[in-house]
Amino acid sequence: MKKLEVGILGATGMVGQRFVSLLEHHPWFELKWLAASERSAGKTYAQACNWRLREPLPKSVRELTVHECRPAPAGRPGGAPQLLFSSLDSKVAGEVEKEFAQAGHVVVSNSSNYRMEPDVPLLIPDVNPDHLALVRQQRKLRGWKGMIVTNPNCTAVGLVMSLAPLERAFGLEKVLMTSMQAVSGAGYPGVPTLDILANVIPFIGGEEEKVESETRKLLGKMGDGQVKMGDFAVSAHCNRVPVEDGHTETISVALKAKTTIRDLVEAWRTYRSLPQERDLPSAPKHPIIVREERDRPQPKFDLNVEHGMATVVGRVRECPVLQYKYVALSHNTIRGAAGAALLNAELMKSEGYLD
Amino acid sequence: MKKLEVGILGATGMVGQRFVSLLEHHPWFELKWLAASERSAGKTYAQACNWRLREPLPKSVRELTVHECRPAPAGRPGGAPQLLFSSLDSKVAGEVEKEFAQAGHVVVSNSSNYRMEPDVPLLIPDVNPDHLALVRQQRKLRGWKGMIVTNPNCTAVGLVMSLAPLERAFGLEKVLMTSMQAVSGAGYPGVPTLDILANVIPFIGGEEEKVESETRKLLGKMGDGQVKMGDFAVSAHCNRVPVEDGHTETISVALKAKTTIRDLVEAWRTYRSLPQERDLPSAPKHPIIVREERDRPQPKFDLNVEHGMATVVGRVRECPVLQYKYVALSHNTIRGAAGAALLNAELMKSEGYLD
Amino acid sequence: MKKLEVGILGATGMVGQRFVSLLEHHPWFELKWLAASERSAGKTYAQACNWRLREPLPKSVRELTVHECRPAPAGRPGGAPQLLFSSLDSKVAGEVEKEFAQAGHVVVSNSSNYRMEPDVPLLIPDVNPDHLALVRQQRKLRGWKGMIVTNPNCTAVGLVMSLAPLERAFGLEKVLMTSMQAVSGAGYPGVPTLDILANVIPFIGGEEEKVESETRKLLGKMGDGQVKMGDFAVSAHCNRVPVEDGHTETISVALKAKTTIRDLVEAWRTYRSLPQERDLPSAPKHPIIVREERDRPQPKFDLNVEHGMATVVGRVRECPVLQYKYVALSHNTIRGAAGAALLNAELMKSEGYLD
Amino acid sequence: MKKLEVGILGATGMVGQRFVSLLEHHPWFELKWLAASERSAGKTYAQACNWRLREPLPKSVRELTVHECRPAPAGRPGGAPQLLFSSLDSKVAGEVEKEFAQAGHVVVSNSSNYRMEPDVPLLIPDVNPDHLALVRQQRKLRGWKGMIVTNPNCTAVGLVMSLAPLERAFGLEKVLMTSMQAVSGAGYPGVPTLDILANVIPFIGGEEEKVESETRKLLGKMGDGQVKMGDFAVSAHCNRVPVEDGHTETISVALKAKTTIRDLVEAWRTYRSLPQERDLPSAPKHPIIVREERDRPQPKFDLNVEHGMATVVGRVRECPVLQYKYVALSHNTIRGAAGAALLNAELMKSEGYLD
Repeated sequence: MKKLEVGILGATGMVGQRFVSLLEHHPWFELKWLAASERSAGKTYAQACNWRLREPLPKSVRELTVHECRPAPAGRPGGAPQLLFSSLDSKVAGEVEKEFAQAGHVVVSNSSNYRMEPDVPLLIPDVNPDHLALVRQQRKLRGWKGMIVTNPNCTAVGLVMSLAPLERAFGLEKVLMTSMQAVSGAGYPGVPTLDILANVIPFIGGEEEKVESETRKLLGKMGDGQVKMGDFAVSAHCNRVPVEDGHTETISVALKAKTTIRDLVEAWRTYRSLPQERDLPSAPKHPIIVREERDRPQPKFDLNVEHGMATVVGRVRECPVLQYKYVALSHNTIRGAAGAALLNAELMKSEGYLD
Repeated sequence: MKKLEVGILGATGMVGQRFVSLLEHHPWFELKWLAASERSAGKTYAQACNWRLREPLPKSVRELTVHECRPAPAGRPGGAPQLLFSSLDSKVAGEVEKEFAQAGHVVVSNSSNYRMEPDVPLLIPDVNPDHLALVRQQRKLRGWKGMIVTNPNCTAVGLVMSLAPLERAFGLEKVLMTSMQAVSGAGYPGVPTLDILANVIPFIGGEEEKVESETRKLLGKMGDGQVKMGDFAVSAHCNRVPVEDGHTETISVALKAKTTIRDLVEAWRTYRSLPQERDLPSAPKHPIIVREERDRPQPKFDLNVEHGMATVVGRVRECPVLQYKYVALSHNTIRGAAGAALLNAELMKSEGYLD
Repeated sequence: MKKLEVGILGATGMVGQRFVSLLEHHPWFELKWLAASERSAGKTYAQACNWRLREPLPKSVRELTVHECRPAPAGRPGGAPQLLFSSLDSKVAGEVEKEFAQAGHVVVSNSSNYRMEPDVPLLIPDVNPDHLALVRQQRKLRGWKGMIVTNPNCTAVGLVMSLAPLERAFGLEKVLMTSMQAVSGAGYPGVPTLDILANVIPFIGGEEEKVESETRKLLGKMGDGQVKMGDFAVSAHCNRVPVEDGHTETISVALKAKTTIRDLVEAWRTYRSLPQERDLPSAPKHPIIVREERDRPQPKFDLNVEHGMATVVGRVRECPVLQYKYVALSHNTIRGAAGAALLNAELMKSEGYLD
Repeated sequence: MKKLEVGILGATGMVGQRFVSLLEHHPWFELKWLAASERSAGKTYAQACNWRLREPLPKSVRELTVHECRPAPAGRPGGAPQLLFSSLDSKVAGEVEKEFAQAGHVVVSNSSNYRMEPDVPLLIPDVNPDHLALVRQQRKLRGWKGMIVTNPNCTAVGLVMSLAPLERAFGLEKVLMTSMQAVSGAGYPGVPTLDILANVIPFIGGEEEKVESETRKLLGKMGDGQVKMGDFAVSAHCNRVPVEDGHTETISVALKAKTTIRDLVEAWRTYRSLPQERDLPSAPKHPIIVREERDRPQPKFDLNVEHGMATVVGRVRECPVLQYKYVALSHNTIRGAAGAALLNAELMKSEGYLD
C-alpha cells in the first residue's frame, strides 16, 4: 500500500515534535510537509526546531523545509498534503485551521478552538467514534471542501477513557476529578523552573472549564445529527506538579446502576471499541489497564504501557461521598495530544474519509 | 513567670526536631529533657540527632543528654518533667505514652495511636477546644495520674481548619478532598528519592482512613461527656508529590444552609476561636488566610505565613458536583505536627490543666 | 540621617526584585524610583511585576510608577535619583547605563557589559575596594558627569571571595573550578522545567569566559591608575543543576607559598576587609564561613548564613593534581547580584563618592 | 548453542535488579539462580524484591526461589551455577565472594572489596582486557578453585573510558574530575528525598578515594604478572545531584604528547578494543560517542545511547590550567555496574575462562 502523505501545522512545538516522532515509522502515513510560524519558515526542520524529545530527531525529517501556515493558492504546486495534523497555538489555530479546511484539507487538530463547536467532532476513537459523522453537517453548514476534526484536552482524555466503560455499563451521574499534571502539557519553554521546582501550582488557565465541558460532549449521545451532552455533572480541580510527562488523576464517581468494585474492574478490563476491532495502528490493545498494586498507577512506571496510548487505572475503592473512587494515569503528549490526533486520522481513514 | 519545664519523647526524629526548634524561644515552656530510642540513649542530642532542619540546632539543646523512653521509678531523681511532647513512632507510642500517663505525666502526643479513642481528646484548639474535657473521663476510666491528649494527622489539620468556619456558619453535608502531600510528612529518611523524584505516588498507607475518621471526630459535638461524630460524609484521596514541606489540598463541599462565595470568604476571614481570644503564644492571629490570586495558595509562597500555623485558602468557586470547591494549604510539620501539639499544650496551660 | 534616594533600572526582573526586597529596610538608602522596559512603563510596580520572591512585595513599593529607562532632559522634574542600581538585560544595558552616566548618574550595575573595561571598577568590596579609584579615569576619559561601577558574575563572586584570603596569604598560581549553578541565575522565566527537571546541563552561555576573566581582574593589583590582571591561571567548568538558589563550586588550587590545610582554614576564618572594618550595612561579619562537617556546604542548609552575603567553604583537603581542593557555596542572587551591587554602593558612600 | 546457566548474589538490590533485567534476553547466559539476604531466602523473587526499574520484572524470574548467599556443600544438589554475578553490599561481599570462589565459582563482582587487591583483575574490557590474566596468580596464591573478577566504581568507569583513548594516543600526565552523580548510584532506598530535593550534596563517602585509585589501576600496564599503576595524577571531587540515572563529569587533563582538539576527538571516535573486535553481546559498537552540540551530553538525552554502555563526551575545549577539558556522561547502573560485570563475563567466556 502506498502511504498517504501528511503534513503538520505547528511542527516545531512540543506536540509538533511528538507528531514527527510518532509518524516516523507509521504504516499508513508518511510525513512530507511541515509548517510553523513565520520565524521558522524557509529553514530546515533541524534548524527551525529546538528538539526536546528524548528519542532522536528522525533523519528523514531533518532536511524538510518548514513552510508558512498558509494554504497554497489553487493550482499552485508545492502545497500541503490533504491530511494535516495541527498542533497550532490556540491564538492562531482558529483562523489558520479554517483556511486550510476551506481550501479542502482535512485538519486533524489538537487545538482547543473548535472542540466545542456543535458541528465539529470531538473524538476519542475508543469512546465516541460515531461522533465523526458530525463532519457531514460541518461541510454543509460551513461550505468547506475540507473539514476539521478535534481531539480533547490532555486532561480530559484519561478521565473520559476511564469513564467510558462505566457510562456504557452502569450510567454516570456524578464525576469529581483532581488532576496532578505534568509540565510537558504546557509546551516549551512552558513552565519556568522557578515556578514549579519542589512546588505545586493549583491552577492551569482554562483547564477546568475544558475538562468539564469536553467530558460531557465526549460522552454525549449522537441523535438527529447532533451530540446531546451527557446528562451527568462533572467537576475538575486542575493542578501542576513537577513531573515531566503523565497526568495523574484522582476520580470519584456516582453511577446510575448499582454495581460492585469487581464489576467496575471487569468493565474496564473487557472494554473494547472500534479501534481495537479494526486493529488501528496506534490503537492500544487494551484501552484500560487496571493495576492491582496498592500504590499504582505512577508516572514513573506506568506512563508508556501500550506505547502511551492506554489509560492506567488503580486503587479502586468505595467513596464515602459519591460511590467509587480510583486513580487514573494518561500520557499527556501521546494519548493526550499527538497520539490522539493520529488515532483520529486512522479512524477517518478506516471510515473512508481520506480516500 | 518561671517557665514550665518540658520534655520530648522521640526527640531525634523530624517532628522531634521541630519540637526542639519551636521550643527554643517559647515564652511559657523550657526544654529540659529529651528521650529517644535505645540507640540514642546516653548520647548528647548533638551526637544522637541527624539534624535536618534548615534553621540551626539550638545551642542550649546540643549538650542535653538523650534518655530512654521510660518513666523514672517513683522517688528517683533525673526523671522527666510533668509535660511531655511525644512524636514517637506509632509502633512504640501506644505502650510508651501509656506508661508515662500512668506515671503522672501529661503526654501531648502527635502519634496516631490514641487519637480515635473515645476518652482521648483529639484537638485543634482553634476548632474544638471543648473536647479537652474528655480527659476527665480518661483519668477516671483508666485510673491514670497523668493523661494523653492528641493532635490530628497532618493532612486532616488543614482540611478541618478550613471546614470549621463552614460547619459553624452553614453546616457540613459532604466533603471530598484530594491531597498533594510533601515528603517531610513521612519523616526521615522517609521517602526514597528514587520513588518520588519527578513522580507522583497516589497512595500513603493508612492516611485516607485517618483523614476520614479524624475529620468527623474533630468536628463532632461534645455532649454527655463524649464526642458525637460529625454527621457528614468525608472522602479522601491522598497523594505524595515531590515537595519538601506543605500539604496542598483540593476540597469540594456540600453545605446544609444556602450561602454564597462571598459569605464563605467572610466566614473564613472572620473566624476566630479560643486561641485567638486568649492570645496563646503559638496561635495564628488569623487561623484562615484567604488569597485572592487565581493561582494560590502554593507551598513555595504561602507555607510560612503566621509562622506556619495558619491554613491558607484560595480559588473559591462553585463545584458542579457538590456546591463549592477551593484549595487549602497547611504546613505539615508545624501546624500538622509539632506546632499543633505545642498549641494543644498552651491551651491546656491556659485551661489550668498544667498547674 | 536623611536617607539617600535611589532608583532601579530593570526593576521588574529577578535581580530587580531582589533589589526591591533588600532595599526595603535599608538604613542608608530609600527606594523612590523604578524603571523597566516600555511594556511596563506607566504601570504601578505591582501591576508591572510578576513578583517571584518568597518574601512578600514591600507595600511601600507596590504603588510606585514604573518609568522608562531614559534619563530626564536637563532641568525637567520627575527624573531619576543620582544613585541607580542596574539589573538591565545585557542587550540594552550597554546603551542605557551609558546615557545615565553621561547625564550625571552613579550607575551601580550588575550587568556584564562594562565589567572588563579597563576604566570601569569591577568590585567586591571585601576583596578589591581600591579598584574603585578607576572611576577617576573613567570620568576623565569618557567625559561623563556620572559613572559606572560593576559587580562580578554570580559564579565569579563565590570563587573570588574564597580565593582572596589565599591570594593575600600565599599567592595563587592555578585555579580550577567546576560550578553547579542554581536556576535563579538565569532570571525569570529563565530555565524551562523540561530542560532541567532531574537533569544536569553542562553549559551556560558565556559563563566560563566571564568567570575566567573576571577572576583575574578582581584579584589584580592596582598600579599606575590601572588594574594589572592577576598572574595566575583560571579554568572554569560551568553547569546548571535543578536547585533554586545557590551556586556550589568545587575548587582546586595551586599556591605560590607552601602552607598547610590548617593555615588555609585560618586564612579564611580570620579574613576581614574594608566592609567589615567600616561595618557597612550589607557587609557580612565573616566574609568566609568554614564548615567542619564532611558533607557541607549545601544550598539547602548554608545559603542564607550572613543574610546570603558570606561565602561558605568546606571539605578542605589535599588535591593530588594541584595542591588543595575544597567546596564553596555562594548565594547567586544576593551575594552574586543585588546584594553585591548594594555593598558596592555602600562602599562608594563610605568613600565619599555619593556626597 | 546451549546457554550457560548463571546466578546472582545480592539479587534484590538495585544492581541485582539491573542484572535480572539485562540477563532477560541474553544470548549466552541464562539466569537460573538467585541469592540474597536471609530475610529474602525462601521467598520467590517477586515476593522478595521491591522491583524499582521502569521496565517490568521479567516473568521467567518472578517465581525463581531466592537462596541464601552460601555455596552448597560439595556433592549436594540445588547449588549455584559456576558463574555468579555479585552485587552484594560491601559489608558482606568480602566474606561471601571468597567462600564462593573457594568453592569453585567464578564470581564476577560489582562490589568494591577486592578491586584494589594486586591479584584481582579490575576490568573494563574496552580498556584493559589483558588484566584478566591476573586470575592465574590469584588462583595460585589463594588456592581457590574458582576466582573473583571485578569492575570499577560507577564514577571511575566513565572517566576511564574517556581517558583510555587519550592515554593510548598521547599519554596522561594529570587528570582532574568533578562528578555530578545520580541518586541511583546509592542503591535503594538510598538517598532520602529530604536530603537531595532541589539540593546538591558535595560528598559521597569513599567515592573520591575509589575513583583516584581505581583509575590508576585500570590504566596501569601489565608486566611480570602484575599491574603497574598508571604514572599520572588523578584528583576527584564527587557530588550528588537530584538526577535519577547518569553520572555527569567535568574533566580537565594534561597530556604527555602535544596534540590538538581535532586529534582528541579523532582518538575518541576511532577508539575500538577487544569487545568491539569480538563483537561481545553487551559491547557498545562505539565505546565513546562525541557530541558536537554546545550543551551536551546531558543525562536526559544521552543516557541510553548504545544501551547505556557507551561513554558520551562533549564540550571539548582548551583548559587554561591543564591542557584540555571536556564533559563525559556514563550510565551508572548499566555501564557503571551490572552492564560492566556482564561485559566482564562475556570477555571471560570469549577468553575461554568459562569452559
